[in-house]
Amino acid sequence: MDKHQILELLHQVKDGTAAPEEALLKLKLSPFEDLGYAKIDHHRGIRQGVPEVIYGQGKTPEQILGIVKAMSDRGAENILITRMSGDAAEFVQESIALDYHPIPKIGIVGRCKEVTAQGKIVVATGGTSDLAVAEEAALTAEVLGNEVERLYDVGVAGLHRLLANLDVLMQAKVVIAVAGMEGALASVVGGLVDCPVIAVPTSIGYGASFGGVSALLSMLNSCASGVSVVNIDNGFGAGYLASMINHIGGAV
Amino acid sequence: MDKHQILELLHQVKDGTAAPEEALLKLKLSPFEDLGYAKIDHHRGIRQGVPEVIYGQGKTPEQILGIVKAMSDRGAENILITRMSGDAAEFVQESIALDYHPIPKIGIVGRCKEVTAQGKIVVATGGTSDLAVAEEAALTAEVLGNEVERLYDVGVAGLHRLLANLDVLMQAKVVIAVAGMEGALASVVGGLVDCPVIAVPTSIGYGASFGGVSALLSMLNSCASGVSVVNIDNGFGAGYLASMINHIGGAV
Amino acid sequence: MDKHQILELLHQVKDGTAAPEEALLKLKLSPFEDLGYAKIDHHRGIRQGVPEVIYGQGKTPEQILGIVKAMSDRGAENILITRMSGDAAEFVQESIALDYHPIPKIGIVGRCKEVTAQGKIVVATGGTSDLAVAEEAALTAEVLGNEVERLYDVGVAGLHRLLANLDVLMQAKVVIAVAGMEGALASVVGGLVDCPVIAVPTSIGYGASFGGVSALLSMLNSCASGVSVVNIDNGFGAGYLASMINHIGGAV
Amino acid sequence: MDKHQILELLHQVKDGTAAPEEALLKLKLSPFEDLGYAKIDHHRGIRQGVPEVIYGQGKTPEQILGIVKAMSDRGAENILITRMSGDAAEFVQESIALDYHPIPKIGIVGRCKEVTAQGKIVVATGGTSDLAVAEEAALTAEVLGNEVERLYDVGVAGLHRLLANLDVLMQAKVVIAVAGMEGALASVVGGLVDCPVIAVPTSIGYGASFGGVSALLSMLNSCASGVSVVNIDNGFGAGYLASMINHIGGAV
Amino acid sequence: MDKHQILELLHQVKDGTAAPEEALLKLKLSPFEDLGYAKIDHHRGIRQGVPEVIYGQGKTPEQILGIVKAMSDRGAENILITRMSGDAAEFVQESIALDYHPIPKIGIVGRCKEVTAQGKIVVATGGTSDLAVAEEAALTAEVLGNEVERLYDVGVAGLHRLLANLDVLMQAKVVIAVAGMEGALASVVGGLVDCPVIAVPTSIGYGASFGGVSALLSMLNSCASGVSVVNIDNGFGAGYLASMINHIGGAV
Amino acid sequence: MDKHQILELLHQVKDGTAAPEEALLKLKLSPFEDLGYAKIDHHRGIRQGVPEVIYGQGKTPEQILGIVKAMSDRGAENILITRMSGDAAEFVQESIALDYHPIPKIGIVGRCKEVTAQGKIVVATGGTSDLAVAEEAALTAEVLGNEVERLYDVGVAGLHRLLANLDVLMQAKVVIAVAGMEGALASVVGGLVDCPVIAVPTSIGYGASFGGVSALLSMLNSCASGVSVVNIDNGFGAGYLASMINHIGGAV
Amino acid sequence: MDKHQILELLHQVKDGTAAPEEALLKLKLSPFEDLGYAKIDHHRGIRQGVPEVIYGQGKTPEQILGIVKAMSDRGAENILITRMSGDAAEFVQESIALDYHPIPKIGIVGRCKEVTAQGKIVVATGGTSDLAVAEEAALTAEVLGNEVERLYDVGVAGLHRLLANLDVLMQAKVVIAVAGMEGALASVVGGLVDCPVIAVPTSIGYGASFGGVSALLSMLNSCASGVSVVNIDNGFGAGYLASMINHIGGAV
Amino acid sequence: MDKHQILELLHQVKDGTAAPEEALLKLKLSPFEDLGYAKIDHHRGIRQGVPEVIYGQGKTPEQILGIVKAMSDRGAENILITRMSGDAAEFVQESIALDYHPIPKIGIVGRCKEVTAQGKIVVATGGTSDLAVAEEAALTAEVLGNEVERLYDVGVAGLHRLLANLDVLMQAKVVIAVAGMEGALASVVGGLVDCPVIAVPTSIGYGASFGGVSALLSMLNSCASGVSVVNIDNGFGAGYLASMINHIGGAV
Repeated sequence: MDKHQILELLHQVKDGTAAPEEALLKLKLSPFEDLGYAKIDHHRGIRQGVPEVIYGQGKTPEQILGIVKAMSDRGAENILITRMSGDAAEFVQESIALDYHPIPKIGIVGRCKEVTAQGKIVVATGGTSDLAVAEEAALTAEVLGNEVERLYDVGVAGLHRLLANLDVLMQAKVVIAVAGMEGALASVVGGLVDCPVIAVPTSIGYGASFGGVSALLSMLNSCASGVSVVNIDNGFGAGYLASMINHIGGAV
Repeated sequence: MDKHQILELLHQVKDGTAAPEEALLKLKLSPFEDLGYAKIDHHRGIRQGVPEVIYGQGKTPEQILGIVKAMSDRGAENILITRMSGDAAEFVQESIALDYHPIPKIGIVGRCKEVTAQGKIVVATGGTSDLAVAEEAALTAEVLGNEVERLYDVGVAGLHRLLANLDVLMQAKVVIAVAGMEGALASVVGGLVDCPVIAVPTSIGYGASFGGVSALLSMLNSCASGVSVVNIDNGFGAGYLASMINHIGGAV
Repeated sequence: MDKHQILELLHQVKDGTAAPEEALLKLKLSPFEDLGYAKIDHHRGIRQGVPEVIYGQGKTPEQILGIVKAMSDRGAENILITRMSGDAAEFVQESIALDYHPIPKIGIVGRCKEVTAQGKIVVATGGTSDLAVAEEAALTAEVLGNEVERLYDVGVAGLHRLLANLDVLMQAKVVIAVAGMEGALASVVGGLVDCPVIAVPTSIGYGASFGGVSALLSMLNSCASGVSVVNIDNGFGAGYLASMINHIGGAV
Repeated sequence: MDKHQILELLHQVKDGTAAPEEALLKLKLSPFEDLGYAKIDHHRGIRQGVPEVIYGQGKTPEQILGIVKAMSDRGAENILITRMSGDAAEFVQESIALDYHPIPKIGIVGRCKEVTAQGKIVVATGGTSDLAVAEEAALTAEVLGNEVERLYDVGVAGLHRLLANLDVLMQAKVVIAVAGMEGALASVVGGLVDCPVIAVPTSIGYGASFGGVSALLSMLNSCASGVSVVNIDNGFGAGYLASMINHIGGAV
Repeated sequence: MDKHQILELLHQVKDGTAAPEEALLKLKLSPFEDLGYAKIDHHRGIRQGVPEVIYGQGKTPEQILGIVKAMSDRGAENILITRMSGDAAEFVQESIALDYHPIPKIGIVGRCKEVTAQGKIVVATGGTSDLAVAEEAALTAEVLGNEVERLYDVGVAGLHRLLANLDVLMQAKVVIAVAGMEGALASVVGGLVDCPVIAVPTSIGYGASFGGVSALLSMLNSCASGVSVVNIDNGFGAGYLASMINHIGGAV
Repeated sequence: MDKHQILELLHQVKDGTAAPEEALLKLKLSPFEDLGYAKIDHHRGIRQGVPEVIYGQGKTPEQILGIVKAMSDRGAENILITRMSGDAAEFVQESIALDYHPIPKIGIVGRCKEVTAQGKIVVATGGTSDLAVAEEAALTAEVLGNEVERLYDVGVAGLHRLLANLDVLMQAKVVIAVAGMEGALASVVGGLVDCPVIAVPTSIGYGASFGGVSALLSMLNSCASGVSVVNIDNGFGAGYLASMINHIGGAV
Repeated sequence: MDKHQILELLHQVKDGTAAPEEALLKLKLSPFEDLGYAKIDHHRGIRQGVPEVIYGQGKTPEQILGIVKAMSDRGAENILITRMSGDAAEFVQESIALDYHPIPKIGIVGRCKEVTAQGKIVVATGGTSDLAVAEEAALTAEVLGNEVERLYDVGVAGLHRLLANLDVLMQAKVVIAVAGMEGALASVVGGLVDCPVIAVPTSIGYGASFGGVSALLSMLNSCASGVSVVNIDNGFGAGYLASMINHIGGAV
Repeated sequence: MDKHQILELLHQVKDGTAAPEEALLKLKLSPFEDLGYAKIDHHRGIRQGVPEVIYGQGKTPEQILGIVKAMSDRGAENILITRMSGDAAEFVQESIALDYHPIPKIGIVGRCKEVTAQGKIVVATGGTSDLAVAEEAALTAEVLGNEVERLYDVGVAGLHRLLANLDVLMQAKVVIAVAGMEGALASVVGGLVDCPVIAVPTSIGYGASFGGVSALLSMLNSCASGVSVVNIDNGFGAGYLASMINHIGGAV
């Protein structure tokens, strides 16, 4: 129930076509966002061109297919499925066209996304083993309408690889820095660029990396300004936030 | 040494006014940022209207005054001093005009900052005890040229206080969510708005709040998209990042 | 040995049908609860209509069946088996009628439970992946004679879903709030209702959720009054406690 | 705005004394709790005989006095101030009659509370050093209208002290078990009684007690059914919850 | 109520001088230890020559004096007060003869203890800074009637100091190994001797010693057989246990 | 090289049958224990009737068999193999008579052990799931020549089960308390008995039991005197230490 | 681009065969290390006789083979592959001669390495189960041109085994101390020798060893001078650093 | 008793001037290091030109002075006192000439140290607040006879500061990298240089720096080869180890 619907209801009350008591019930029962807080609905709702997201982990192939179909029926043109197993992808592909990326375990249903924001998002990783998380971020950002440039394996232990790509970093509107182990990439990048840096710790590593905790702490303690952190391995969250920030800079 | 200087040096080599060996030496010795990566210098340098920042903790009043004077001599018009003790403020005020805020322990030297970005930053807190961190964020953002609106004591245990201010939240370009204890504010706000939410855990609390760890973990695990996290009590970092994002949205 | 038995023994001593020394030995050897602390026995004992509980984890199918049979022989009409594998369920079902719920891994032996308490228990979850733990709580409460209403997937990142169900929450005598990740549901619900809220952190999540630790800390730090916490994934404990509280409110 | 006010507004729209647009605005701007969710207001509101609570920690004596006065002006007859320093108590006592308890650091303003619930709350502690937290729980429960019986220093290392008081425990409607160090009291009590046990870990101890973490974990892992846990040292929370449960059992 | 008292009561019932109902009440109300479990009473009771122990931390000088006097009145000849501040000691010494040891903060009231066990207890420390904890252990053991030999500053980083004292270690009935930092002393000693080794981690150290956690973990992981561990800084506990074991070996 | 061998060597030097330089070399090269520190050798050496111990985890069946054979060749009559897989047991049994216990994963080679110590060791567990660790302790103690009595499933949540067996506990020379989850058994037993209690935390449990950490902390914080702790799941270590203490009490 | 190439470029500018603008572009685009910081290139580059290293974990057999081939094509004569599965080894061996060590999971491609440093590296372990990590260190050091002596199973619980090998330790230029559980080996060795000790905690152990954390903390807290620590199980890092230090001592 | 003394003793036995039994006793009683393991004695002994070290923390001014005097009496020419308070320094200076450095809290007694090693040690810090720890390292290394170059405030968030000093880093024989917060300096430096890097985490920072834990983990996880780590704030240990390595490179 949006503003116009409430207004119409009130007019019905005025016209006598709706009893006050009946209107009260409708107002009370209608979902909260119907009272005019349309933004809530916007956030996860189905709008033209904004993809719907399904978190695939812990869902059966059948459940995923069911949700995809229900979304399509409700008009979703673009659906992003994260943490989707290869088995689930195969199962869904039997019924619906799905573009599946096995390394980041991402499935994309629907038309190809055009770029809708002016700026560029750079996704940088410390090592090649951070690739899966980085691609989750990169694909998410692309599906959400962003131009993405990848700078993989530019960890700080071989600084020249990073410095050789300074121009790329400098042109970014947002940088997503993905790194496990010591997680120093975020700080170094944060000191080099003048734009927001979204740090994604990864669970890559062994021993005292403690499944990403070392990288997480390192990133939270970054001395560089403009760095903020998302959950360990949360490539999707970083890509989503980067897109949000990039779109503030204006549409194409 | 910037692009033009390198070009000039190369012309001198061509003209024979500089020997190739001499040029090699100059190229090698010149600081890295002189090779044209001016952004590095920009980042912490003194530019017109961008404040210089001093981290006051662990510095003596004399040291702070010394740095402030040196910065002023080099042309800084606007200096922000964070984590500055009352004693240090009094000491500096004897020599230089300083606007001191005792709760967030922030000192500001120089002319009042005009607003330079179009959007608005909302700083929300879970409780009144998060005030000091929130003010560090808010003042930082203001000094950096942003319009800031404060929404204090809107914690999730009294949800109506937050919901009653939904309009304020909805108009924000960036929200800074400051909370200790269970830190749930970031998630709830993140689910209500459509803009980036910067979560700041605070060390406020007792027992199993573990000096902010509980709030930090809670914020990192936020199920709402668009939420990222800075270090515990890092109001300055949140304010700085919020300003960065807000200025992407265009100047006034 | 209960009060009456002790009294009888003492009368036998008086009558001379039992020697004092013999009575002394009986008193000393009888189990502690026989001295009149009948409540101890009540707690886990077999009474009319109160189900016996078996913790299935780590027990072989044969062991579970053996215990079930022994309980039945001792008169148990209603047996709840938690954390029971599908294999164990199949094995037991070959010998005894067992109602098995595969998601919460709960098996129920015996007659259907009628409702014995007046109030209603609401079980709410933050996400669909908390379902297994929530169902363990809900089924436990139902078997113990409570009316249970389920409110699943009402996490705080989509606040309208929770608010749309305020009426349900308001009518609860006890709420069980089941959530992983940031665990904020308990605080938000605790701020909305006026009854006890039992918070159950779940191990659902990844990265910095640390197997439920993040949710656990968040719930322990809840700023809302009336919230208490049980162990991670302890749906049974929550359901049992909720039933205990609900029955204080009076029988049907 | 409650149900009646909304209904009245709708009648005004029907009568033509209020324009639909005007009514829409009122509906949108009215605080959330005005939409009929009166329970929210009840929760922290001022009602006849229910005390208002002030969390004293981190507030200046002047601030506490100010809040107390404001509450009194709004009709509060009974105000509970937790974590109140002796200095603050002295300061407030100069202006207002305040009953101050130095060990649990609790101040009580207003008329003596009569008992409003039928059942009895037992507060048990493992040692004498848990007294402060226990008294915070006990006084909170008393101010909220409960009969409270104290069982202090009945720790499990001297089991006979606890067993000698079984009758007291057996008569409780709710037990609050307060213990530091190994925190075993909650489990032992939980195994003896048939009512809800609220476990409060305390920060009392040294070494591997880690400020209450050991007791907290011990209590969360309790094998006894009916036990739930609140934050370390959170006597107030336990007293509040115990009162909530005790009042379910019916008024005096 | 001991065995004889119960028997007497039963004879009274038989004689008719006590009614069965009256006897029932007496049996139920008598403290648990009265039922014949005299060992419980022994454990902390006052017997000839066994010292009473007061944990001084958190008690006021007045409280300590009060307890000491009450114990003396009940016949205690030997009282050990642990974690007693110098102020408390001075206060008590004004009223009662007290032997105070400032480094381990131990006060001893009463006659000098003669040795009652045959074996010898060796207390070894890794460094000189572990002295306070070691002395708490050593004095406790001495007051409890043991011959104690001190081997201080024999840490494993200077192995020759330890090896030069092998003869002393070899003659021990029990060894108490007190060490902070890496806590390796317990393992090395455990590998050298053939008797029980009680390991006491101390909170001495800095950085990654984490207040004794490093030493605690090291000691728990000891590869040497015969090593067990008490709480960080728990010199009293180690001394008490060592005395218990030493007395198993027979009296002087 | 033992005392006698050194003496003989010195006599050879005196007799001129050994050159001083040659003797020097022998003294220097001979293992440390040969210098007379025979206890070291005693500790792990092969003596009449003391079993040799093999830690089976991480060793192949072939390796275990090889070590067993080598030990037998060197005269070992009694060999205890801990953490031995069923496969390894089957493999060894093909060559050598081996008594295998599948639950504690213990294999015993050699003649049956007679009891060599006077006292009795009681092994108590909190639940049935602690059985494997408890049996590792009990069998170890039995092989080492102790009479062992088992008290399983006497956890504190059902206190009457423990109290009903007080007589058994009272007769113990040493008690081994094995418990997971809240680990309260050690404290309760420690408060009831007057002999050393060796606490063994187990990794049994889920959620906040953190693989035995909760029980470990609980046991370290025990308020009962005479309690010490070994590593999580270290049944062997507890059995070995218990035997050591029990043998102090004198041989049969 | 090395020094000579830059100089040549500058000469080309001087000669007019390269335009200044063109040279500027080349300088800017050339990787950072081309500006003369040849050491960077040295670090991971391909030089005569220094092996290339591949971290095998997380790479498919095909990827490993591909990298090996590419390195060989670029002239690498000696390639070390760490954490290589047996399957990967078999796959690579079908195409290229590979020396595979299954316990430390190391593969070596290329000619046998001669010793290039004067000193000797001693690799010591606490137990036999630390072998895999120790061999990773030893083989790495050998491939890098060092003489390595192995001292396995010399843990501190059997000190005589270590002391019997003091001569070996004394002759080392660097010692690598590999130990799990209590990790005391590093401290004891550090106290015995006068050379750098590189401590490698291993994840071997159970219970409170916490996957190597206990050993790690123990080693960081070593009271012996000259001890430093690498990551848990990081045999390669220790071997590499030991070789670095050993080569400081001069070439053969 | 060194080699020569043992040989002399054996000759006395041969000559008949010493009885074999007497010699046996001497051999057994002489301290371990007397058997020829002179290196042990060397390690902490007083040799020409090697300073004696006193750990000042926890020692009274009187104790420190006493130890200094005793050392001087035994011939120590050079004494380093770490973690020495200003008060202790003043007290000692009244009796003995002491060079006191207040920031790293280091006192030096005795003649100025000449440089004895060829190489240079570089001490680099991430920020100015790491100065105290860095100076502890630098002064230790200088007192031990090394040339030290300081590179302070070259943290990775301002990479150009570090890169501008690459030449200094390149010339080091050993680098000590001192950093708090994210601790990334060690990795970046480790990737730039070809010599051992000793990483020292500092407790500088706030929030999620957890007193140096974040920097510690970051450094342990360094992807750069040649990096090892010492305890948090252990500047002395790093300086000592650096000197050890530097002296391997040869004397001046």
